[in-house]
Amino acid sequence: MDAIDTLVEEFARLPGIGRKTAGRLTFFLLKRPRDEALRLAHAIQDVTERVVFCSRCANVSEDELCAICRDPRRDPRLICVVEEASDIRIIERSGGFRGLYHVLHGRLSPLEGRGPDTLTLELLERRVGEGGVDEVILATNPDVEGEATALFLQRRLQPLGVRVSRIARGIPMGGDIEFVDEVTIGEALAGRREL
Amino acid sequence: MDAIDTLVEEFARLPGIGRKTAGRLTFFLLKRPRDEALRLAHAIQDVTERVVFCSRCANVSEDELCAICRDPRRDPRLICVVEEASDIRIIERSGGFRGLYHVLHGRLSPLEGRGPDTLTLELLERRVGEGGVDEVILATNPDVEGEATALFLQRRLQPLGVRVSRIARGIPMGGDIEFVDEVTIGEALAGRREL
Repeated sequence: MDAIDTLVEEFARLPGIGRKTAGRLTFFLLKRPRDEALRLAHAIQDVTERVVFCSRCANVSEDELCAICRDPRRDPRLICVVEEASDIRIIERSGGFRGLYHVLHGRLSPLEGRGPDTLTLELLERRVGEGGVDEVILATNPDVEGEATALFLQRRLQPLGVRVSRIARGIPMGGDIEFVDEVTIGEALAGRREL
Repeated sequence: MDAIDTLVEEFARLPGIGRKTAGRLTFFLLKRPRDEALRLAHAIQDVTERVVFCSRCANVSEDELCAICRDPRRDPRLICVVEEASDIRIIERSGGFRGLYHVLHGRLSPLEGRGPDTLTLELLERRVGEGGVDEVILATNPDVEGEATALFLQRRLQPLGVRVSRIARGIPMGGDIEFVDEVTIGEALAGRREL
C-alpha cells in the first residue's frame, strides 16, 4: 500500500471521519508546505510520548501531578468526578469550580463488559480514605450508564464519611457533557444536590 | 502551550475540523495504545517525505513518474485534465477511463488572484506539443470557475491541433467532482462533447 493510501486509512480510523473525509484531509496535507504537515505529525508524537496520567487524579498530564493538582489555589476538600479527562476542560471553561478532579476513564457499562475494575475507583477511594475531602461531586454524564455509575459511586463513597453530591440536571437527559455550553455547566455545578 | 493543546490546535487547522472535534480526536488518540497513535504520525511523515509530483502529469507519486503514467496499458493519446490529484481517484473508481491524466493543481480564480501561471499549464502544453495526443478531456469542476478554466484551456490547446472535449454535464451544476457517485462520473465521461 502506498503512502497516500496508508494515511487515508489512518485518518479513517479516527472517530467521525469516513473514507471521503480522510481522503480530503490527506490531500489537504499534501498541498500544505512540508513543515506545516509535519507539525501535526510531531504534535501527535509529543502527545504519545509526553502525556501520562496524573498519579493523584488520573487526569492527563506531562508531570507526575497534573497542573490542577499542583495548583495551590485549588480547594482539595472538593473533588469533582468525571468520566473522561476531556470533560475537565469543559468544566474548567465554565469557571464555576475551584476544587480538584478525579477522572474515572470510563463508566460502568454491563452491556460492554465494563465493570468497576475498569475505572480508577481504587485510586478515588484511597484519596477519599486519606481524609481531607469534604465532598465528592459526581459529574458523570446524565444518561442511563452515567446515572448508574453515579449511584454505584455514591454507595461506595458514602461509607467513607464523605458528602456525595450529583451535578444538577441542568444538562438535558441523554446529553453529553462535551456538547453543553459553559453557562449550563456552571449552573449545573452550582445547583448540585446531595445524594 | 502543552502537548495536548498543541495537538488540538494542529487538528483544528484541518479543513472541516473545529476546536471541539479537534479535542475529541486528541483525546481519542490519548486513549489508544501508543503504537496506534504513532501510526498516524508516521503515515503523515511518510506522505510528506515520499510523495512528489509526477514529472509528466503532476499527479501525486512516489516515483518520478506516477503509477498511471508508468502503466503500459493506458492510452497515451487521451489526456483527462483535472483540478486536483484527488479527482483522479474518483474518476479511476468509475473504471470509465483508460487514458492518462493531467493535474492542474487548482483552477483559474481572478477573485482569489489565481491566474494561469498558478496552474501546471506549461507542462500540459509541452505534453500536447510533443505530439501523440489525440484528445484532451477537460474534467474541471462544472461550476463557474471550473467552466472558465475549461474555456481558457480550450483556447490554449486547440491551436496545438488537438481535439478538446469537456466532460458531460452529468454532474449537477455547482457540484464538486469529489462528491459524485461513480456511475454519474462514468456517464459524464462517456457523454463528453467536443468544444
